[in-house]
Amino acid sequence: MTASTVIALDAMGGDRAPDIVIDGAAIARERYPKVRFLFFGDESRVKPLLDRHPVLLACSELRHTPDVITGEMKPSLALRQGRNSSMRLAVNAVAEGNAASVVSAGNTGAMLAVAKFVLKTLPGIDRPAIAALVPTMRGETVMLDMGANIECDAENLVQFALMGAIFCRAVLGVNNPLIGLLNIGTEELKGHDEVRTAATILRERPFPGVFQGFIEGNDIPAGTVDVVVTDGFSGNVALKTLEGTARLMNHFLKQTFLSSLPARLGYLLARGAMNKLKMRIDPRYYNGAMFLGLQGVCVKSHGGTDAVGFANAIGVAYDLIDHRFNDRISEELAKQYGLNGLSSQPSDKTQAAIAPPSADGLA
Amino acid sequence: MTASTVIALDAMGGDRAPDIVIDGAAIARERYPKVRFLFFGDESRVKPLLDRHPVLLACSELRHTPDVITGEMKPSLALRQGRNSSMRLAVNAVAEGNAASVVSAGNTGAMLAVAKFVLKTLPGIDRPAIAALVPTMRGETVMLDMGANIECDAENLVQFALMGAIFCRAVLGVNNPLIGLLNIGTEELKGHDEVRTAATILRERPFPGVFQGFIEGNDIPAGTVDVVVTDGFSGNVALKTLEGTARLMNHFLKQTFLSSLPARLGYLLARGAMNKLKMRIDPRYYNGAMFLGLQGVCVKSHGGTDAVGFANAIGVAYDLIDHRFNDRISEELAKQYGLNGLSSQPSDKTQAAIAPPSADGLA
Repeated sequence: MTASTVIALDAMGGDRAPDIVIDGAAIARERYPKVRFLFFGDESRVKPLLDRHPVLLACSELRHTPDVITGEMKPSLALRQGRNSSMRLAVNAVAEGNAASVVSAGNTGAMLAVAKFVLKTLPGIDRPAIAALVPTMRGETVMLDMGANIECDAENLVQFALMGAIFCRAVLGVNNPLIGLLNIGTEELKGHDEVRTAATILRERPFPGVFQGFIEGNDIPAGTVDVVVTDGFSGNVALKTLEGTARLMNHFLKQTFLSSLPARLGYLLARGAMNKLKMRIDPRYYNGAMFLGLQGVCVKSHGGTDAVGFANAIGVAYDLIDHRFNDRISEELAKQYGLNGLSSQPSDKTQAAIAPPSADGLA
Repeated sequence: MTASTVIALDAMGGDRAPDIVIDGAAIARERYPKVRFLFFGDESRVKPLLDRHPVLLACSELRHTPDVITGEMKPSLALRQGRNSSMRLAVNAVAEGNAASVVSAGNTGAMLAVAKFVLKTLPGIDRPAIAALVPTMRGETVMLDMGANIECDAENLVQFALMGAIFCRAVLGVNNPLIGLLNIGTEELKGHDEVRTAATILRERPFPGVFQGFIEGNDIPAGTVDVVVTDGFSGNVALKTLEGTARLMNHFLKQTFLSSLPARLGYLLARGAMNKLKMRIDPRYYNGAMFLGLQGVCVKSHGGTDAVGFANAIGVAYDLIDHRFNDRISEELAKQYGLNGLSSQPSDKTQAAIAPPSADGLA
């Protein structure tokens, strides 16, 4: 097993763990034959499930972990008392170089706290962000932050924009991604100070993509931009509203088809196409929120997902590794700092520390 | 004309004004025969349009206004330079007692600034909020604030909850409305300080409705509560995301029906039912955002709406007048203060000011 193809899995995280984790890994194994898995969980529960999938078993290793971080546990408590939990040890595997990424369907707040504590942020990134893909009229859009940071300053937002842009380039293959800052109006005067300052910086700084300015909530599903940048509060509200509205529309549609005999017959005729539509907006296909900005790839699956959804979350982790996402962020940050003359600041300081002070103290 | 049945209309506000305003009023006139209209606008443009609707003309009065507040004008400029604008004079009509409410499809920021300046807030309300109705799985939900206040403190949110609850009782006929505070998780520990403090107050204070605690974005379209309370930034993002997602789903649905011959045939059969679905989510039927908390009823129509949408905005104004919404807010606030012992505070102070100080200064 070389770490570059290993994904650590928290077998105990999620409403239907460990079953969906093992079944999901079995589906992912078929899709990505190169991948190997490192399971962390209660051996007595995980081993019998693994035994059902001989192909998966052959490319997996199981580490017994005595503890579990529950869905209700506070992040601070999870950090203190979860040192021997399946989640923590799976994250540790990435920090120790035994896995290239980790996937968990467990407690989001706990995973974020553990991942931040164990993996640390990438140099040049102050705070990690949770990113998600959303279906839009023009394909799909990456949106961040989805809830890691309730309040963000302008520089945080700029860093999110940078990470989103590189994700688009590296993973989605969009070379010149359009970036939008979520606001409540497209005029320059609107919104918080943080959002307006971030816009000013993004307009001035050389950037891997095209800054489109402010966008509004309706622009998210419209696919106006490739990257939607926002604070974790608004992002979380927007993502969940979008998901809920898709469910509402499905509900209305079902009622519509049941409302009359011709409508029922119509549904029978259109059923094949309707099933394709269902797949297109199936939340399982958009499962797998990414914690971007950490020294290691972390993917958080929805807690209530099934095996198919969990397999898709593993797919997200695979894509991030396969496209060397974190390396590209680091390369871009180095380039950014160079372009901005920021990289010369640390070396200036080093020089200043080494060089003897000049007479006027200005050296 | 008695003011109680008069609605002042800004004939020049909106992308397709004055046409949609006059045509919308003609539709509203049919629905509400008691209503009379006071139009404010450019006489040379409005008069010929009014002449086309004899029934409307008979119950209307037209006041010539030389100026227009454009869509791009900053609120501060609109306040200073818009004194003779159709919008300002229509709002003035409410302040002067010549109309019971005002409807405009013009610049939202300008209308809010003008309405706040001219009408002032109701006693006990610190800031007006923009409220809107959204379609949900359980009917419709009132959501506020939709963008009047980008940042809100806990007391603002509590006042929004109160206004939303009274709106539900007075206008929607929901006697015991469920109130939810929008957050990014339902746990008590999540969210901004403001949201958590507001929740504490709402749990403790006697309230016209049932406080359900925190809700998330997906709860809005699910209709989990009757009143969604949030700050103007998140509320605006949520509402526009909801509208955009409904459009996205319609777009997907159209593509689905065009994707194969059976699907096309199916659509033909289901068409009648589909048209009903269309009506159910038609944004025109949810047109008319209310500025709640002012000493006068103000309704803001979507700027890009048509005559049907504008007629619905007039309907919203009519409902607010007809159900004596503002009187009920004032009554409830008086009751609230009484229940909380807050009303006794001012009188205590008065007494303290009159009574001679006792020797130990504790009186």
